[in-house]
Amino acid sequence: MTTTSLTINFERLKQDIFHLSTIGKSPEDNGIYRQAFSKEDLQARQWLGERLQKAGINSTMDGAANVLARIGDPEAPSITVGSHLDTVACAGALDGALGVLVGLECLRTIHEQDIPLTHPLELIAFSDEEGRFGGMLGSQATAGMLNPGFIQHAMDLDGISLVEVMEQQGMNPMGILDCSRTRDSLLCFLELHIEQGPVLDTKNLEVGIVSAITGLFKWQITLSGTANHAGTTPMTMRQDAFMGLADFAHEIPRILDENGGENSRATIGKVELFPGSPNTIPEKAIFSIDVRDTDVEVLKELQLAIRKALSAIARKGGLMFEFEELSFIHPVQSDVQLVNALEKKARMLDYQFEIMPSGAAHDAQIMANLCPVAMVFVPSKGGVSHSPNEWTDWAFIEKGANLLLHTILELQNQKFEKYEG
Amino acid sequence: MTTTSLTINFERLKQDIFHLSTIGKSPEDNGIYRQAFSKEDLQARQWLGERLQKAGINSTMDGAANVLARIGDPEAPSITVGSHLDTVACAGALDGALGVLVGLECLRTIHEQDIPLTHPLELIAFSDEEGRFGGMLGSQATAGMLNPGFIQHAMDLDGISLVEVMEQQGMNPMGILDCSRTRDSLLCFLELHIEQGPVLDTKNLEVGIVSAITGLFKWQITLSGTANHAGTTPMTMRQDAFMGLADFAHEIPRILDENGGENSRATIGKVELFPGSPNTIPEKAIFSIDVRDTDVEVLKELQLAIRKALSAIARKGGLMFEFEELSFIHPVQSDVQLVNALEKKARMLDYQFEIMPSGAAHDAQIMANLCPVAMVFVPSKGGVSHSPNEWTDWAFIEKGANLLLHTILELQNQKFEKYEG
Repeated sequence: MTTTSLTINFERLKQDIFHLSTIGKSPEDNGIYRQAFSKEDLQARQWLGERLQKAGINSTMDGAANVLARIGDPEAPSITVGSHLDTVACAGALDGALGVLVGLECLRTIHEQDIPLTHPLELIAFSDEEGRFGGMLGSQATAGMLNPGFIQHAMDLDGISLVEVMEQQGMNPMGILDCSRTRDSLLCFLELHIEQGPVLDTKNLEVGIVSAITGLFKWQITLSGTANHAGTTPMTMRQDAFMGLADFAHEIPRILDENGGENSRATIGKVELFPGSPNTIPEKAIFSIDVRDTDVEVLKELQLAIRKALSAIARKGGLMFEFEELSFIHPVQSDVQLVNALEKKARMLDYQFEIMPSGAAHDAQIMANLCPVAMVFVPSKGGVSHSPNEWTDWAFIEKGANLLLHTILELQNQKFEKYEG
Repeated sequence: MTTTSLTINFERLKQDIFHLSTIGKSPEDNGIYRQAFSKEDLQARQWLGERLQKAGINSTMDGAANVLARIGDPEAPSITVGSHLDTVACAGALDGALGVLVGLECLRTIHEQDIPLTHPLELIAFSDEEGRFGGMLGSQATAGMLNPGFIQHAMDLDGISLVEVMEQQGMNPMGILDCSRTRDSLLCFLELHIEQGPVLDTKNLEVGIVSAITGLFKWQITLSGTANHAGTTPMTMRQDAFMGLADFAHEIPRILDENGGENSRATIGKVELFPGSPNTIPEKAIFSIDVRDTDVEVLKELQLAIRKALSAIARKGGLMFEFEELSFIHPVQSDVQLVNALEKKARMLDYQFEIMPSGAAHDAQIMANLCPVAMVFVPSKGGVSHSPNEWTDWAFIEKGANLLLHTILELQNQKFEKYEG
C-alpha cells in the first residue's frame, strides 16, 4: 500500500510546532504555560481544531476537553494516535504537543494523499496529562476510569477545584463522564513522545520503540527518633532520624542490585527534617521514595526489600518507621503486534533505533485499559524535559513522524485480535 | 574555714527558682519566654537586683544589661560565679537561671554567715547568652570582644536591631563597650549549669565537673548535581545530589572513629533538597554539619577528613561540592586548679560525680579569655533542655549548689597565678 518514499510534510509539521509553541509562551522566561483547562490550554485545543478543519478534517471536543478527529470509516474501530496538549508550568515546545502534532500530520498526509484506509485513523489530543487534577485526566475519562466523586473533589495545588475551572470555561464538569469509550471502538493506540530521558541521546539513536511503560510506587516514609542537643549528646546515645535515612539511602544501590533489574529506578527527591536546626539532632525525617520498574513482580520485591532495610535500620538506630503509599501504578507492556510493526518499519526506513522501556508515565499507559498500545520515542537532548531547554533534533522529529505514518499504514494490512489486556 | 556542715539555704533557693520561673512564663504552653532585652528579661534582672538588695547586697546593671554584685573587698580581684538569665523561646525553669540563682544563694549564705573572705566573691548574671544577637553577648562584652561595628549591625532573626531593642529599654547600645573587664579584676570564673545532655542522668550521677568545653565548627555544605526525571534517567546516568549526601552521612561514623575521640560529635541537622520534588532527582543538597570536640587539633583533623570524604564522593558521583564555614569556636580547657578544688570538695561531700566535657557552649567559654574557668554540671532528666520539660532533681540541684559554695570557700585558701590563658 505504501513505499518508503511517502513522507509527512515536514515543513508543515515544523510550522505547526512553532505556532503551537507561541500559545501560552511567557516572554519573561521563554517557558510555555498551558496548564490544563487554562485559557491558553483551551486556545491550543481550538487552534488544533482549526488546523484540522483547514485540512478538511472535522474535529470535536468531548466533555473532558479531549480533541478528537478521524478519517476513514466513521463507525469502525479505529487505529488511534495522539498525546496531550497541556503543559507543566514553564514547559518546552515538545513533550505531549509533539505527539499531537505528529498525529495531526499523519492524518493530514493520509487524507490529502487519498490513501484508502481499511481501519479508520483517529487522533486524540488528551487533556490534563500533566496532572493539574491528578494526571492523565483526559485518557482516564476516555477509559471510563473517573466517577462523579472524583470530579466533585478534584482540586489543584492552589486549591482551585476542577468544577470551578471547567465551569469558568463554560464546560459541564459531569460531561467528563460522557467521554468513556468501549473496547470495541478502538483497535490500538500509538503515542509518539519525547523520551524525557538521556538514553537515546547518549547512545546517538534516532528513535526508540517502547517495549513497556514502567509502573511505580511512591511512598512517604517517616523515620522518628529523638531531638537532642548536637553537642551534649554522645554519638552512642542518639536516635538520629537523618542518620537512619542516610543509612537507608546508602542501601538503595544494593537493594536494586539484589532485587531489581536494568529498568529499576529508585529516587529520594524530597526530604524534610524536624526540627531542622543545625545544632539539633533530627527527631524526624520525612522523605519520599519513587521506585519504578517495568515488571510488577520486581516492584513487589523492591517493596519488600525496602521494608526489610528500613526495619533493620530503625531497629538498630532506635528509630520508629512508618510509611504511606502515595501511589502504585501498574506497569504496562506494549503490544507485541504493534512493537513488531514499529520495528519492521524502523528497519525498512533504516533508522538507528532501540527497543526500550519508558520510565515516565504516559496517556498510553491509561489507554492500555481499552486497547493494545505502543509508543515511539524521539531523543531528548541531554535528557532534558519540562523545561524551555527541552529539544529534539529536527531530523529525529521527522524520522519519528515518518515511522508513525508508515506504521499506521502497515497496520492497515493487519487484523487485530479481541483485546484481552 | 568551713566544714561540710555548712550548706546553702535550699528552701530559699527553691523559692527563687519558682519565682524566677514565673517571669515570662506563657500560660499557653507553660514555656518561659525571656528573650534577651525583652521586657521579661529586664524584669528578671530587676527582680535579681531586688533579691540581692533584700539580702543586703548591692548590685548594678552594666551597659550590656549584665547584673553584677559582690561581697568582700570592693577592689581586689574576685572569684566570680554566675551564668545567664535570658532564655530561648519556650524554655524551662533551669538552664542559665539556675547558675545565677545558685550564685546568688552562695553570696547570700556567705554574707549572712559573715564568713570572712580572702578573695571577694562576685556574681554576674550575663545577658543574651542564648544568641538573640549572636550568642554570649554579655560575656563577650565583659571580655572586651565586641566593637561598635558589631553593635550597630547586630540584628535578630525577626530583623530587629540590637540598637533598637536596647534604646526601647532606655539603654545606650554603645554602653556595651563600657563593660569590658581587665584580667586583673578577676581570679577565676565558676559556672554551674544543667548538663543539657543525657550522660549524668544515664549514669545515675549527681554532679559533673567540666574538664573542657568543646569547640566546634559549623559548615554549610552544598552538593550540586543534575536535576532529572526520576523515571527516565537510568541509575548509572545520574548526578544525584542527595545520594551524595547520603553516602557522606554514612561515612560519618568512620570519620569519627578514625580521626576523632570519645568527645567528638558530628550532626547533620538541616537538609534542603532542590527542587525537592518526589519524582525529580535532586540537583542540589544544601546541608549543615556541626562538629565538636574538646581538642582543636582533633577538630582540624576532622575538617580534613570531611573534605576528603566529600571530595571523593563528589568525584565518584559527578557532583560539585562547596562549603562555607559558618562558625569556628575554639575549645576551652577548664583550669586544673579549679577542677582539682571541685573534685576535692565533691569527694569530701561524698557526691557521685564524673569529670566530663561540656558539649554545649557556655559563658564560661568566653570568660576563659579573661581568667581561669571551670563548670559544675547537674543532671538533665532524659538529657532534655530548652523545653518546659527540662528538669533536674531537687536533690542534685542542692548538691550542685553546695559543691559550688564549698569550692568557693576552698579557693579562699588558695593563691592564683597570673593568668596566661
